[in-house]
Amino acid sequence: MAFQQVTIVGTGLIGGSLGLAFKQHDLAARVVGCDRADVLDEARRLGAIDSGQTELKPACAGSDLIVLALPVGGIIDSIGRLADAVTENVLVTDVGSTKREICGAAMKVWGEKAAERFLPGHPMAGKAESGIANASAELFRGAPWLFTPLSQPLAPKASAFLSAIEQIGARPMMCDAAEHDRTCAYVSHLPQMLATALANVVDEMANTQPPAEQLAGAGLRSMTRLAASPYAMWRDIALTNADNLADAILKMEQKLAHLRENLKSPELRAEFERAQAARAMLK
Amino acid sequence: MAFQQVTIVGTGLIGGSLGLAFKQHDLAARVVGCDRADVLDEARRLGAIDSGQTELKPACAGSDLIVLALPVGGIIDSIGRLADAVTENVLVTDVGSTKREICGAAMKVWGEKAAERFLPGHPMAGKAESGIANASAELFRGAPWLFTPLSQPLAPKASAFLSAIEQIGARPMMCDAAEHDRTCAYVSHLPQMLATALANVVDEMANTQPPAEQLAGAGLRSMTRLAASPYAMWRDIALTNADNLADAILKMEQKLAHLRENLKSPELRAEFERAQAARAMLK
Repeated sequence: MAFQQVTIVGTGLIGGSLGLAFKQHDLAARVVGCDRADVLDEARRLGAIDSGQTELKPACAGSDLIVLALPVGGIIDSIGRLADAVTENVLVTDVGSTKREICGAAMKVWGEKAAERFLPGHPMAGKAESGIANASAELFRGAPWLFTPLSQPLAPKASAFLSAIEQIGARPMMCDAAEHDRTCAYVSHLPQMLATALANVVDEMANTQPPAEQLAGAGLRSMTRLAASPYAMWRDIALTNADNLADAILKMEQKLAHLRENLKSPELRAEFERAQAARAMLK
Repeated sequence: MAFQQVTIVGTGLIGGSLGLAFKQHDLAARVVGCDRADVLDEARRLGAIDSGQTELKPACAGSDLIVLALPVGGIIDSIGRLADAVTENVLVTDVGSTKREICGAAMKVWGEKAAERFLPGHPMAGKAESGIANASAELFRGAPWLFTPLSQPLAPKASAFLSAIEQIGARPMMCDAAEHDRTCAYVSHLPQMLATALANVVDEMANTQPPAEQLAGAGLRSMTRLAASPYAMWRDIALTNADNLADAILKMEQKLAHLRENLKSPELRAEFERAQAARAMLK
């Protein structure tokens, strides 16, 4: 067993999927969940946790691994509340979508012990539909799991966690927290903002005949799928990565203006050909 | 049999799929294709056509239905070249993605006979991957097929065509050509431009570590899938719907600027909640 007792704080889509995967691969003797009582009931019923606790500190008591699987604001809040509760031989890790503010909070709370106590992480896995009901032990298979360690080499518990997530199919990658936040603004946060914006632009058209929603094809549907994502998670991402995300959105505005000004020029061909080549790289 | 002999001009994804569907439902005694020789060979091999002709006029000789399944520019060109070849009891229809310029070309060529000779149409079906190799008899099932008739009531052949496409699963809808072009700018052409722009914005980032393409998740992939679409088709759409498309792109730029300016304000919540509700309508 990699870990004796794991506490997963937040047993929604990510936390619940991690619980299912850890149990399926026998990576922990016992998995404790911390969430609302009704979510914990569902997580236990699905086999994602062995037991649940609605209060943070009791949920973490006696665990050698604590996974904070909350929106970024909740992670920062939990780090503050767990400050004294995390002793030697306990590793705290998180799954937050932005990393600079989380790393800053950990360093403020744990000082020179921060690198030993806390491994900042971000699994690049998800679904438009959140919640424990959509959890799956296979969610992380093939997905990058980024880490922005506070120092290297990693502490032994942190290395054990990397090895555990490799066993559930994830691909650990190391990077700098600032680099992480900038890259994710483009590859993850910008697509979300585009889907939200497009759904609203189409919705705000004056009444059309036939109604626009009856004409939605596969293209519009795939381009707005992310608009179903929960706001609570995105509010924290926007708050903690506003600088990078504003840059990315502005670049997109400029690119759209360029296309708009070249609808009848050969430059449109060049943009399409570059995009086809770039898209082929993403497959 | 609804038709004795159908000529499909352009046996790619749409034309090839229509040939397969017409043959599967016994809607024509004979289907003739018109395209490059190698495309015709493949269309015949797949059973989308009975025979092929690389020249337009010989391909159309003796047919009572001619379907122009080309990009918009090719449709307009074909209407001009077929002007005198279309006699009484022959219906020409098309599948062009924009309708105002095509309707204008038909009225110029056929004058007061235009409504009898030509039924402007637009099946809202497609795939990011074009070509006869991706054709399917099921492509039109459940898809809207918009018509912008030059006058009503429809001529008997036009009614027969509507009934035929209902038999292959499409949902015919009537609208005005100007309304069609405006609505399609939002529900179809704007999503394409966004996918192309996003693929290029991500590609144009300075080198990142780990490389952005390794971090592409389901979100970015679904948001750039359309960037693989063929330029030849989109060039003609941009040329013949530049006014509406420019309006739609500009509205998108304004919406993005609004989100960018509200990343830390409660207005972001309002935009997310409106987008979730709008997205739910598209399902």
